[in-house]
Amino acid sequence: MRGEVTIDLTGVMAEEIGAAHGLSEADLRRIEPDLVRVASEIADLRRRGMLEVLDLPSVREDLDRIAEAAVKSHGFRNFVLLGIGGSSLGARAIFEACLSPFHNLAPEGERGAPRLFVAENVDPDSLDSLMRVAPPEETLYNVVSKSGTTVETISQLLVVWDRLASSVGKRAAEHLVITTDPERGFLRRLASELGIRSFGVPPGVGGRFSVLTPVGLYPAAVAGVDPLELLDGAAQMDERCRDNGWRQNPALALAGVHYAFDRLKGKGITVMMPYADSLRSFAEWFCQLWAESLGKRTNPAGDPRAPVGQTPVRALGAIDQHSQLQLYVDGPNDKLFSIVAVHRHRAEVRIPETTLPGVREEGLGHIPGHGLDELLSAERSATEMVLLGSERPVLVVDLPEVSAFSLGQMFYLYEWATIAAGMLYHVNPFDQPGVEEGKLLTHAAMGRSGSEKLAERIRSHRQRPDRHRIR
Amino acid sequence: MRGEVTIDLTGVMAEEIGAAHGLSEADLRRIEPDLVRVASEIADLRRRGMLEVLDLPSVREDLDRIAEAAVKSHGFRNFVLLGIGGSSLGARAIFEACLSPFHNLAPEGERGAPRLFVAENVDPDSLDSLMRVAPPEETLYNVVSKSGTTVETISQLLVVWDRLASSVGKRAAEHLVITTDPERGFLRRLASELGIRSFGVPPGVGGRFSVLTPVGLYPAAVAGVDPLELLDGAAQMDERCRDNGWRQNPALALAGVHYAFDRLKGKGITVMMPYADSLRSFAEWFCQLWAESLGKRTNPAGDPRAPVGQTPVRALGAIDQHSQLQLYVDGPNDKLFSIVAVHRHRAEVRIPETTLPGVREEGLGHIPGHGLDELLSAERSATEMVLLGSERPVLVVDLPEVSAFSLGQMFYLYEWATIAAGMLYHVNPFDQPGVEEGKLLTHAAMGRSGSEKLAERIRSHRQRPDRHRIR
Repeated sequence: MRGEVTIDLTGVMAEEIGAAHGLSEADLRRIEPDLVRVASEIADLRRRGMLEVLDLPSVREDLDRIAEAAVKSHGFRNFVLLGIGGSSLGARAIFEACLSPFHNLAPEGERGAPRLFVAENVDPDSLDSLMRVAPPEETLYNVVSKSGTTVETISQLLVVWDRLASSVGKRAAEHLVITTDPERGFLRRLASELGIRSFGVPPGVGGRFSVLTPVGLYPAAVAGVDPLELLDGAAQMDERCRDNGWRQNPALALAGVHYAFDRLKGKGITVMMPYADSLRSFAEWFCQLWAESLGKRTNPAGDPRAPVGQTPVRALGAIDQHSQLQLYVDGPNDKLFSIVAVHRHRAEVRIPETTLPGVREEGLGHIPGHGLDELLSAERSATEMVLLGSERPVLVVDLPEVSAFSLGQMFYLYEWATIAAGMLYHVNPFDQPGVEEGKLLTHAAMGRSGSEKLAERIRSHRQRPDRHRIR
Repeated sequence: MRGEVTIDLTGVMAEEIGAAHGLSEADLRRIEPDLVRVASEIADLRRRGMLEVLDLPSVREDLDRIAEAAVKSHGFRNFVLLGIGGSSLGARAIFEACLSPFHNLAPEGERGAPRLFVAENVDPDSLDSLMRVAPPEETLYNVVSKSGTTVETISQLLVVWDRLASSVGKRAAEHLVITTDPERGFLRRLASELGIRSFGVPPGVGGRFSVLTPVGLYPAAVAGVDPLELLDGAAQMDERCRDNGWRQNPALALAGVHYAFDRLKGKGITVMMPYADSLRSFAEWFCQLWAESLGKRTNPAGDPRAPVGQTPVRALGAIDQHSQLQLYVDGPNDKLFSIVAVHRHRAEVRIPETTLPGVREEGLGHIPGHGLDELLSAERSATEMVLLGSERPVLVVDLPEVSAFSLGQMFYLYEWATIAAGMLYHVNPFDQPGVEEGKLLTHAAMGRSGSEKLAERIRSHRQRPDRHRIR
């Protein structure tokens, strides 16, 4: 098989870190029936066509249109993705994993793709700065919102549309590519009425599970990352996740380990710590997927059991050894660690022998002559050891390299694991009921008609006396 | 007083969110004696000159040399800070708070400062990419390490020095500015022997508390941010923190609230969520300060009580409403939230009236006509309300604007609060014993002589059978 992502559970076992904090054979036996149940539930749902998200690796009809649209994008100096949350994190993870961190600073000729920006927030300073550096008339905007009505994204669109309309007039529509529901919503309507190029997000695929649809694949293609590689990686992982035994199915194992540590070992926090700068945004993507899918108040049957949901935290090796590691090693033993190891980097950088004075005398004489990759790998092993030595559970996710193919595997692995974890917790991993009220309040505060009562609530919140202000 | 940072504790009180999760008058009475003790301990230590970090706002001797060095930096196209953890996070926070997020993409003439980079990690791909986009011969490096022997930073230095030596020969030393211990360590020795421009970090000030020394102030000056504004902001906060009553002293209040929620209300996680893109790195800086200072195994007297340390998490509004908020609202009630509100942005961006079809029909007719700042502020209020409605404690930190002056206040506020929290927990906020073993292991793996036993341990860890690998 082409370079496989594998996971090593050795560091979560009681034989490695002791029975107080590690999984014993008894613990494994305790969760095994649940894992069997979940695996067969997933297989059954898939047979009935009810888990569309897991079938995405074989959906390839859009690829020609994506490739064609990507070629068109190269007529623009800048590509700006307007989207937030599930509409942006996947593309951001792809850009960061597959491109130079300084892509936008590379000379025009060497880049082979437009400059790439992801505009998520409605911070006026950010959007203003972005429009200065990437003027709308030189920019292609990919407006991404599954519902087609996300207030942040629509607001950004109205701002840039206004600028486009005044600068390029009737050609404004050529500066947009819309990715949204195939039938409904404001963006779909816009695409139809103005003839704007567009892609559909399959109705059964929620925003945070949509990276393997045009939501992630079109920006990938614009950036010169082959969507087929992403899908092939995902398809390979799909094959491996069809096994009902957790010792063979990496996603089932991941789900089971997270669930077991949360429920049996009091690890309410899960830390993903890649040792590669290029996976920082992947870890952010994971944090969204895990938090929004599993952080729930009750199970779908309405059983008001205690709220569930591990808190995902992203760290970055080796940087966070100088920031979070002290807490991880000596603080409360309330975390499960996933260290993501990358075994082949693109560049080789050697620490050269040196004539600088004092290197040997100051105890640094052994550093020259090694590769930076050796240093990074030594640091990773050292971190694993101090965590294990402090009885902290550590699972290791091994990537042969960071590529579109391995990233495709990772996306699929964690999506499958998240769905399985939802079934273990008896929560619906596809909804987000807790954030709907906030959206209604925001619209009310902005003056939506019919929302006067909510508007009154938000007004009175804002005007309540701050009797406990420290000045 | 010039624009003050204030904090509003209304949303953490039992009267707002109920007695199960909010602080009651009885809770406040319970922690009050501890707060009085801590405030007078800090005052006493300061009188005896033993809390140098809190006296930094009045240390201004370096400012002339910093200004002079900053002017020299403008002869270079690029400024690269080589440093990690406490050596980099403060400068990063300053750059992000005070400059355009696209500073490096602005035309040469408009920038008024070199392009700015912070190279933290020893990821070979990152350093290789950086050297391509910012070739050493056009670059000034600020090498920052308090000890002068940080392996990541020294390794980076050896790599760039080699390139400098071969490209600019004897002028290589002019491409470096060193910030390190005034007396000791490899970097100090290098500065002395090669006549490299350098700054000292006061010996009594640890890395993560050093942003108000040349560690943060020199990069600030290079970026065109006035160090005096940072110090003046900090000095103003210093004045406000001299009050022994927590209702007047914002740092004492912050420390007390965090401690009380951790110890009395089971909130082992503290989430800092600014509503401004420009404060993202400030929140990272806070996460380091809080985690590394307070995540400890025992108190200084050696009392092996349960390990302490809240896990700090950074979020970003409004983005994380589409990622983490579902968990925050509906998941376990184990978090204290600090929402950082910014009341004046630099840019004004209005959402224009539009002729786009369907805006009204799709229920978005109320959006045009508002400022993006209004939308961001509505979202912030909505988030506060749903959190409070779900009985989650929310404190609000109000900034009149993001500026060097308000950032100086924030740095000082959180440094003081962290020291006070250390005293409440009875831990030493200035050490990091849990990460020392990892450093020794790393050096051993890299071949330090005399470390053969440790090297053997790391080798056998790496070669242990992975009996629980899922392929």
